[in-house]
Amino acid sequence: MKMFDDSLHEECGVFGIWHEPGVNVAQEIYYGLMALQHRGQESAGIAVCKTDGPRGNLDIHKDMGLVSEVFGHHELDRLTGNIGVGHVRYSTTGESNLNNAQPLSFYYLKGTLALVHNGNIVNCEELRHYLFDHGSVFRGTTDSEVLACLIAKERSEASSIEEAVKRASAHLKGGYAVIIMSPRKLVAMRDPFGLKPLCLGRKDGAYVLASESCALSSVDAEFVRDIRPGEIVTLSKDGIKSDTSLCGGKCAHCIFEYIYFARLDSKMDGVGIYGARYRGGEALAKAYPVDADIVAGVPDSGLTAAYGYAHYSGIPYANVFHKNSYVGRTFIKPTQEQRVSAVHIKLSVIEEAVRGKRIVLTDDSIVRGTTIKNLINMLRKAGAKEVHVRISSPPFLYPCYYGTDVPDNSQLIADRLSVDEICKQIGADSLGYMKLEDLSRMTGDLGVCTACFSGKYPV
Amino acid sequence: MKMFDDSLHEECGVFGIWHEPGVNVAQEIYYGLMALQHRGQESAGIAVCKTDGPRGNLDIHKDMGLVSEVFGHHELDRLTGNIGVGHVRYSTTGESNLNNAQPLSFYYLKGTLALVHNGNIVNCEELRHYLFDHGSVFRGTTDSEVLACLIAKERSEASSIEEAVKRASAHLKGGYAVIIMSPRKLVAMRDPFGLKPLCLGRKDGAYVLASESCALSSVDAEFVRDIRPGEIVTLSKDGIKSDTSLCGGKCAHCIFEYIYFARLDSKMDGVGIYGARYRGGEALAKAYPVDADIVAGVPDSGLTAAYGYAHYSGIPYANVFHKNSYVGRTFIKPTQEQRVSAVHIKLSVIEEAVRGKRIVLTDDSIVRGTTIKNLINMLRKAGAKEVHVRISSPPFLYPCYYGTDVPDNSQLIADRLSVDEICKQIGADSLGYMKLEDLSRMTGDLGVCTACFSGKYPV
Amino acid sequence: MKMFDDSLHEECGVFGIWHEPGVNVAQEIYYGLMALQHRGQESAGIAVCKTDGPRGNLDIHKDMGLVSEVFGHHELDRLTGNIGVGHVRYSTTGESNLNNAQPLSFYYLKGTLALVHNGNIVNCEELRHYLFDHGSVFRGTTDSEVLACLIAKERSEASSIEEAVKRASAHLKGGYAVIIMSPRKLVAMRDPFGLKPLCLGRKDGAYVLASESCALSSVDAEFVRDIRPGEIVTLSKDGIKSDTSLCGGKCAHCIFEYIYFARLDSKMDGVGIYGARYRGGEALAKAYPVDADIVAGVPDSGLTAAYGYAHYSGIPYANVFHKNSYVGRTFIKPTQEQRVSAVHIKLSVIEEAVRGKRIVLTDDSIVRGTTIKNLINMLRKAGAKEVHVRISSPPFLYPCYYGTDVPDNSQLIADRLSVDEICKQIGADSLGYMKLEDLSRMTGDLGVCTACFSGKYPV
Amino acid sequence: MKMFDDSLHEECGVFGIWHEPGVNVAQEIYYGLMALQHRGQESAGIAVCKTDGPRGNLDIHKDMGLVSEVFGHHELDRLTGNIGVGHVRYSTTGESNLNNAQPLSFYYLKGTLALVHNGNIVNCEELRHYLFDHGSVFRGTTDSEVLACLIAKERSEASSIEEAVKRASAHLKGGYAVIIMSPRKLVAMRDPFGLKPLCLGRKDGAYVLASESCALSSVDAEFVRDIRPGEIVTLSKDGIKSDTSLCGGKCAHCIFEYIYFARLDSKMDGVGIYGARYRGGEALAKAYPVDADIVAGVPDSGLTAAYGYAHYSGIPYANVFHKNSYVGRTFIKPTQEQRVSAVHIKLSVIEEAVRGKRIVLTDDSIVRGTTIKNLINMLRKAGAKEVHVRISSPPFLYPCYYGTDVPDNSQLIADRLSVDEICKQIGADSLGYMKLEDLSRMTGDLGVCTACFSGKYPV
Repeated sequence: MKMFDDSLHEECGVFGIWHEPGVNVAQEIYYGLMALQHRGQESAGIAVCKTDGPRGNLDIHKDMGLVSEVFGHHELDRLTGNIGVGHVRYSTTGESNLNNAQPLSFYYLKGTLALVHNGNIVNCEELRHYLFDHGSVFRGTTDSEVLACLIAKERSEASSIEEAVKRASAHLKGGYAVIIMSPRKLVAMRDPFGLKPLCLGRKDGAYVLASESCALSSVDAEFVRDIRPGEIVTLSKDGIKSDTSLCGGKCAHCIFEYIYFARLDSKMDGVGIYGARYRGGEALAKAYPVDADIVAGVPDSGLTAAYGYAHYSGIPYANVFHKNSYVGRTFIKPTQEQRVSAVHIKLSVIEEAVRGKRIVLTDDSIVRGTTIKNLINMLRKAGAKEVHVRISSPPFLYPCYYGTDVPDNSQLIADRLSVDEICKQIGADSLGYMKLEDLSRMTGDLGVCTACFSGKYPV
Repeated sequence: MKMFDDSLHEECGVFGIWHEPGVNVAQEIYYGLMALQHRGQESAGIAVCKTDGPRGNLDIHKDMGLVSEVFGHHELDRLTGNIGVGHVRYSTTGESNLNNAQPLSFYYLKGTLALVHNGNIVNCEELRHYLFDHGSVFRGTTDSEVLACLIAKERSEASSIEEAVKRASAHLKGGYAVIIMSPRKLVAMRDPFGLKPLCLGRKDGAYVLASESCALSSVDAEFVRDIRPGEIVTLSKDGIKSDTSLCGGKCAHCIFEYIYFARLDSKMDGVGIYGARYRGGEALAKAYPVDADIVAGVPDSGLTAAYGYAHYSGIPYANVFHKNSYVGRTFIKPTQEQRVSAVHIKLSVIEEAVRGKRIVLTDDSIVRGTTIKNLINMLRKAGAKEVHVRISSPPFLYPCYYGTDVPDNSQLIADRLSVDEICKQIGADSLGYMKLEDLSRMTGDLGVCTACFSGKYPV
Repeated sequence: MKMFDDSLHEECGVFGIWHEPGVNVAQEIYYGLMALQHRGQESAGIAVCKTDGPRGNLDIHKDMGLVSEVFGHHELDRLTGNIGVGHVRYSTTGESNLNNAQPLSFYYLKGTLALVHNGNIVNCEELRHYLFDHGSVFRGTTDSEVLACLIAKERSEASSIEEAVKRASAHLKGGYAVIIMSPRKLVAMRDPFGLKPLCLGRKDGAYVLASESCALSSVDAEFVRDIRPGEIVTLSKDGIKSDTSLCGGKCAHCIFEYIYFARLDSKMDGVGIYGARYRGGEALAKAYPVDADIVAGVPDSGLTAAYGYAHYSGIPYANVFHKNSYVGRTFIKPTQEQRVSAVHIKLSVIEEAVRGKRIVLTDDSIVRGTTIKNLINMLRKAGAKEVHVRISSPPFLYPCYYGTDVPDNSQLIADRLSVDEICKQIGADSLGYMKLEDLSRMTGDLGVCTACFSGKYPV
Repeated sequence: MKMFDDSLHEECGVFGIWHEPGVNVAQEIYYGLMALQHRGQESAGIAVCKTDGPRGNLDIHKDMGLVSEVFGHHELDRLTGNIGVGHVRYSTTGESNLNNAQPLSFYYLKGTLALVHNGNIVNCEELRHYLFDHGSVFRGTTDSEVLACLIAKERSEASSIEEAVKRASAHLKGGYAVIIMSPRKLVAMRDPFGLKPLCLGRKDGAYVLASESCALSSVDAEFVRDIRPGEIVTLSKDGIKSDTSLCGGKCAHCIFEYIYFARLDSKMDGVGIYGARYRGGEALAKAYPVDADIVAGVPDSGLTAAYGYAHYSGIPYANVFHKNSYVGRTFIKPTQEQRVSAVHIKLSVIEEAVRGKRIVLTDDSIVRGTTIKNLINMLRKAGAKEVHVRISSPPFLYPCYYGTDVPDNSQLIADRLSVDEICKQIGADSLGYMKLEDLSRMTGDLGVCTACFSGKYPV
């Protein structure tokens, strides 16, 4: 369950749309961002542009908050343009402020430039200092702004925006999916490993780009294909143009998209998310069978594995937790003295489903271990006889350099304790983690990055 | 699925707490209301009072919106008192304004009076004119204010607030659960049929009253018992006092609490909600078996019946819809010309779970039929081979006079069409409604009001 | 200067308009309230009604804040009706909340009732308990609500709303100007002493009622006459009707309207405010001549007297203080350690006008004496050679029971100190208060209440 | 009167403070900006920095609106630093958005950079393209951002921030007063003509820079001197350092500061504003004597000249207009059909002061002529016998290139009509404009820019 900050974070979701002149795309971007909201709740923004307007035209609105908080009728109505980009950014403490919200927008040599970015530029500091030495200034602290300035700088020596993007990409290390809007074109690129997702859709008169296929569906666009690792795609009045000269390296798609980040109804680089997680549950049932009365999942991240586990094992699925969908970010947490638990308010046990039962409980991962411990304790208080925990990913052991915000090792329970010790610590009757070799049950023969489990980073 | 206004509405949720002097109860009421939020999203309010303060002391805050929108740290910190009442009100169009929000509060003969109310006083207009003729004025248009004024009027001739409540209750017709806060006491009453729910809990030094037991759990109070139909309970420094002289008539608990209104983890008049709905699914499987590949439910109202159906039938449960939990009340609906469906954005089909499958789809009820038709259509577009609909309640045929906001008959699909015609209209391959005689599978031998299905109203 | 809470307060301003059906009056009430804003800045409200609509129609909006804060286009557009009342309420700490904001509105026997009120009902508690004993409840703590309930109660035995108002008025003691809106009529009354002001205007198809004539001008209405002390005026489709049967007693208009409350451009009971204050300045110059270089006034309350003093004495007028008009209620006051004075920020000395000068400084009154002391000190620091203070009212010595919020005696400097001691205390070179007998220079032979200076209360 | 958009606009007000480490300066900047609020009401902002913190530390807050709207306790408390800059920006329609609000802040080679700017860079477009060609990007459209980027660019080749400022200044044409905050220093510069004002003050342990001396007083700082035209001043832990190598050209201080922009209690380049305007009134009395009963001024811009005119002529000063100080920016203007005049609501005539009188009416300037015409009409309706208009500046005939937002010539009444024609057009009995040669009565032998009247621009 990912409601108690005991979780991983994804950087962002990006969305772009190119439509023939005369149509307003702002509201479609809004729906696209609604569909990507799970990828980031800190800030949201949309920038649009008229390709038949003057080169400096750009309407933009962005603010801290959810898409539905940032955009009302008033804000959407003010955005007019036939091409546009949108962004949702994930929520952390600290460096979160409006200056870092996206789309980033600038005036540059050729008019206006807007950029949305998901991922992490590993050599960002090096690039920033290179630009400083040439007199650049920055408004914020993100790698996204460094990227935008680098592209603008390259543009002064390149013959087109897509060439500038390509020149810039030669300097970049890391995992990223980026969409750039210039006055006449959208240019998208994906890092050579394909660490960050990006896909292409089409509908009447329009091309759509999005982090996940669920965002294509939300605007009734048809899925065309995933952008290839290393590919640069340009959308303009001349249609779609693809530059694949940087493609062809080893694929290393982030495994955590399949385990946790992506939405159930998305399909990513050929693999459906729901099926991946369902098969993960089946693999757990095969690897760690147990004699039990019911199978249940931690809402919402562990539910799909529970269905798979139930199916494979023949043990009936049951709902043991009710999740209060009204508990949001402004919820006032109880203080110690109120003897009320925050978990009780967000999640409550359905006692009649639990009393006297031996329970298999699935979840996607364990980070610090505090939440799962709490939940097991709640189940026992409600009369559960046994609680067997099954986790649909291997233990976290290594940091991620490509944009996934894993806590540092000192906070990772798997870094300090053995599986048996964790089992004891969280109060479970048994504990089974997905085996590294079983990950292929989820994603088949897709090239994935499992560095956070295995320490084998893509070079 | 209850996200598209194609649904029934419950009036409200009430909460009350009596604590020994010196403790502030506002934040516990806040948690109680969070747990009752599903009963009403239009307005929320809390009133508290210090029983060892002057007779006129009362702190109150209420506003339009969700509990989490109405109350922040600032608002809660301003409310100090050791007894209090809280209220959530359901959302409709029209008569919704702050004057009608609860708790209602007044200055009367004995100091301050606050009142929270769930239900409907059938003879309200008659009582209002009786009070008009005696020079009363009203601030709003609710039956709750009439009730409060009636109690205040009776108080001028009664020896105590509880006696005034009893005298007032002699005039009342309808279904209601009410909590009154006077400067020193809480007084609660439930209508003689027990149409509206109310239960009692206890924790160290405190008594708690709530519409549902889940609200007791949310403040770590222990469930003691349901308030009896017709009972008047007084909480004061002298402990708990019960007046049962109006009890003893026929019980007629609202069946829709079990079918839809109440929260999964509540237990009401002896029957757990989750179990009732699960058994409802089993009864449907028994009554309407079908050869199918998967069983799925409409989120969230049809899910529990799906688990029961799956278990009884042996057909595996599957998740076929992803619900976007970020789509709230401020969501901007697509216009016709955007060729984007609002349903697509709130609910999306998990295509890989659906393609080629014969599906049993459960829901709790059909009101207008538009939503279920839409969902079936989405499943077919995603490749479903067959869709068999199973509804865990009989068809709606009669209006409710006790506070449930059923649309008028002209809008009820079951009023116009036979079951076969409905099946055709919504595009299902087969359709089965829960049989009237099978409702006892859900609630056992509990006396329930099924007037909306049977036309047999409690007298 | 009245910017530092070292001041008197007036209760409120009232406004009413009766227009032929078919015209919306909300915006005119808005302008009327803008013109009366100086009479109260705590809350503002407007209620309107269609005389050809159903008897229960009433649109109302009110909130804490200035007229311009409470009303925007959105709020005004929602108010439709051809008759209406408006109110501004003065700002104090404490009992200020929305429940006490006006117009008060109710449903009563005959439909809707709205009421606006300026003044103070002296026997309010007695009336409240009379109503309690008959079962009444109140939402707030104002005498205005008691008045409204009393009228509603009388209405059940009276043949018309104006008769109910008259019957109610028989019970009232105090100073008040009230406008009541029933579904078909406006009824206004003024207390028998005429302590509180109320006047009548006319424009095409409309009658207008207001606390001050400046509000008539603001809607381009022509001044007709002042409402007579004790008069009850009814505006309806039958035109204007006057009941003067309670008139004829002694007049006792509040002298402070002329000294400070009313706006410069108003005319009240036959006497213009600007002229009254100008003549006050002349009277001071005659009574307390002094050899000086310039005459200046404390902004804004002392300026008009300065012009009169300058003219009579032949000493040139000069501006010695600049008032920062951007310092409003949300201004953040400096703390002690910031060594910055709040007065410096609100008022600053124009040094070149002051250096080396002997100055006559006029103001309307001295309450606590802290502000004038501060200002004299600022003038001396800027190089003033002498500062001679002239106050255009006699010393405050007695409390007011009719609605003027004078601080209690312990805070009144004149209650503790002689004029010589006050002069020393505030650091002036000389000090002259208006003589009691010179007040007639301001208001001629008008019957005025000077109880706060003389202790002679109207019986 | 400057309330009806029939007015000139000044660009901005700037404020800076350098204090020893350990003191928080945010609140003092807040007071300084309150005192400069008349120079701009569109947006306000403060940036602060700790000189003993890391080089990248910077706290900033800015938003659209008045200082009191933008800053509350919460916002001020979040700003910690011992040096800082603040800005108020003037209000126009169109290009007003948050991106253009100041202070501008950047990360650059040496850490953080903040900049506040009053004035206009004439060769801005040329500089912008120079920077574009080197790969720069801009967030907004102001010349201030071009200036900041230019300084940052120069910094990469300069040995210090003050040297970078000096190098940048070599490229600048126009009128400007700028304060730059780098991590350790404040650097201020004023254009070589001294078109825009900037002065220096001191208080215990602190140096203060401000557009006007009134802002020094507001923080109890002592006026030290005006910054010299062309001077660059650096404030750091080494004290104050002045670079005057660019000084020595011809002075051309903007005459409109004395006529209208600056605050009454400021002193600028040796000349007090109040005295300048008062002497302007005297000069008008000498040049255009008339037989009249009273002298009055248009609030607030014409009042001081009225005092001077009254004194010189011996005709008594009188107040003929009451200004409603509650009419602000959110005021809802009457529509045509409401037959109510917006001027009536903002300004009203004090009829008893006017009836039967021959009036001299002073104002500072006439732009379009619509407001003065309206006022004269109001005076006549209130019974004025004669209205003689005296304007304390010569007619506007030429555009300003240095930051004063004069309407284009087609809207300037003096461009189309002779003085006699204007007199007739506005309905005055006589009209006198200040003579060009009499301007020296206001400012003595100070070098001033009178280009807007004379067409003689400083080269």
